Amino acid sequence: MRKINSKDIDYIAMGSTVLGTGGGGDPYIGKLLAKEAINAYGEVSLIQADELTDDALVVPIAAFGAPMILVEKLFSGQEFIKAFEMMEYYLGRKIDAIMPIEAGGLNGVIPFSIAAQKQIPLVDADGMGRAFPRLEMTTFNLHNIPVSPITQADEKGNKNVYHTIDNTWGETLVGATTIQMGGSCALGCYPMSGAQVKKAAVHGIVSYAQTLGEAILNAKELNRNPLDTLIEKATALKLFMGKISNVAIKIDGRWNKGVCEIVGLDKFQGSKMELDFQNEFLMAKKDGKPVAITPDLIVLIDAENAKPITAETIQYGTRVVVLGMQANKQWRTPEGLELGGPKKFGYQEQFIPIEELNKKE
Amino acid sequence: MRKINSKDIDYIAMGSTVLGTGGGGDPYIGKLLAKEAINAYGEVSLIQADELTDDALVVPIAAFGAPMILVEKLFSGQEFIKAFEMMEYYLGRKIDAIMPIEAGGLNGVIPFSIAAQKQIPLVDADGMGRAFPRLEMTTFNLHNIPVSPITQADEKGNKNVYHTIDNTWGETLVGATTIQMGGSCALGCYPMSGAQVKKAAVHGIVSYAQTLGEAILNAKELNRNPLDTLIEKATALKLFMGKISNVAIKIDGRWNKGVCEIVGLDKFQGSKMELDFQNEFLMAKKDGKPVAITPDLIVLIDAENAKPITAETIQYGTRVVVLGMQANKQWRTPEGLELGGPKKFGYQEQFIPIEELNKKE
Repeated sequence: MRKINSKDIDYIAMGSTVLGTGGGGDPYIGKLLAKEAINAYGEVSLIQADELTDDALVVPIAAFGAPMILVEKLFSGQEFIKAFEMMEYYLGRKIDAIMPIEAGGLNGVIPFSIAAQKQIPLVDADGMGRAFPRLEMTTFNLHNIPVSPITQADEKGNKNVYHTIDNTWGETLVGATTIQMGGSCALGCYPMSGAQVKKAAVHGIVSYAQTLGEAILNAKELNRNPLDTLIEKATALKLFMGKISNVAIKIDGRWNKGVCEIVGLDKFQGSKMELDFQNEFLMAKKDGKPVAITPDLIVLIDAENAKPITAETIQYGTRVVVLGMQANKQWRTPEGLELGGPKKFGYQEQFIPIEELNKKE
Repeated sequence: MRKINSKDIDYIAMGSTVLGTGGGGDPYIGKLLAKEAINAYGEVSLIQADELTDDALVVPIAAFGAPMILVEKLFSGQEFIKAFEMMEYYLGRKIDAIMPIEAGGLNGVIPFSIAAQKQIPLVDADGMGRAFPRLEMTTFNLHNIPVSPITQADEKGNKNVYHTIDNTWGETLVGATTIQMGGSCALGCYPMSGAQVKKAAVHGIVSYAQTLGEAILNAKELNRNPLDTLIEKATALKLFMGKISNVAIKIDGRWNKGVCEIVGLDKFQGSKMELDFQNEFLMAKKDGKPVAITPDLIVLIDAENAKPITAETIQYGTRVVVLGMQANKQWRTPEGLELGGPKKFGYQEQFIPIEELNKKE
């Protein structure tokens, strides 16, 4: 167990945005809510999964919706408390600890605001080790943990419980009402035991996000290059460097879908990269050939300051670096690839690990 | 209190279809489920609202969805039991009695199947005194009774609870998931006390439906004309008689919207009638002039057998009679007209009672 303070939130938000792989929401609102709650209620205890009793009740709390709307439509913070309390009411017991569902700018830090207010610990783990666009795309699902009951609350005061027959129905029904609610809401989902967290979660992800955030934000003080320190800490591959030459984006239900084109600079001069996204970056192609494929992480970095760029904020002309990172090993199993691999998103290409795709010959 | 048997269900289903005013679903499935349950579990006690204790918990149970889908997609009956049990679980107490939400072919009789299985009485009352296309269009709403918590179950096993800030949000959110569920589901809604039922419901509607059903089905045995006996028992106005010359229908979300044209016969020769519908008939115009306007009831009757025709089953060439019936007085107040009057459905025309519109001069 260690205490998380307001300054740590900056690092965790930054690192979670890297792991958000273009999705996971903009960190601004999440940071604001988390810091405000820590200032008001005190520091949050970050615990490791093995500190949980096996029968503890752990609930991931998340913002849900279209990233573009999550940027524009502010959360009050009360939605998350309502989703939390609705879960306690429905299950008829107290929640012992909460957890982020994914590493992402918004969802990596939002849970800290609830942990602070509810004075309960936050587990250093999540259900993706990155961000993914659909509620059923979790390592929890790979371990057959039901997403239901799902509790949902919006800023207007509507609050619902979904008890779906499987995890895909969870995404379908919650997705349908989220659009009616204006495109965003707060969720409690995948209520699980301490024993299940130990088995099914991606462990240490919050601390890992903090390490990546520190690499970016503290490099200058240490007279180091932030991009280099990030690449080192993330054991990332530098896939491309260039300038954004085009971005096409459309909102399809609660997803931002699109493609971003980058023309090469420096040693990538004469080459072109295309990044496909559905909230998250799913496929990076250099001159038409895949160089990184979901579930491996594709990270778009602003070359000026080494900060990650989310898909909905990509701007023409920005100088960027594209990094590739290996997905958590749970995603590289046949079951993991079925749930989060390229076929799930309609790609013809088979998954090939980035280290294979980019092997120096 | 009186007992309802399998034969009574035939009458109640028929009369409810008259009161369904073109909507409220096809009676076939509802009758089947109600009779099956009565055969298996015994007759159902139909009670008057004043037989309820003031603190009794009463819950309307209803089929919800697009009428065209309700005809094609069979209910198993278990959805309704699940919606019922979800309500008991969520509220943490036993339901003392159930009630139809509306008079309609399907929703007028479906509640009997649950009352039989659960061995609890059914209240001789509903929340419309007719059928209406939206969940918030109830006399309960006119008395500020919340539709929430709403419980929802589908035939696949999904079951949800909605706790919405107002009754319109109930329709919006439940409507959105119902479409995802394939267009139909079972609901528990407007949980209320015995005292609230006494104040807010339309009383005696089940018995009234039975009276109308008997008028149609028993007329021949009594050597009477079924249409005449129906008109007499319903104190209905005969607005038109003719032949269906056209029907345009489209599914818009969970609504059947359309218009049905009738060319006049006999004394209406040379005239034309248009019936607008959104699940229910909302406006009847003769030669372009309104002769019946929602919330008054517009009933399309098959001239051959005096049986009511629901909007989704209208067929070209059928000889029909159009009847008009006065809405329950709760609908004719300014608040009632705001909720169920022509403006609510986008009409320019002001509500004028049918007895005024068709006054003999």
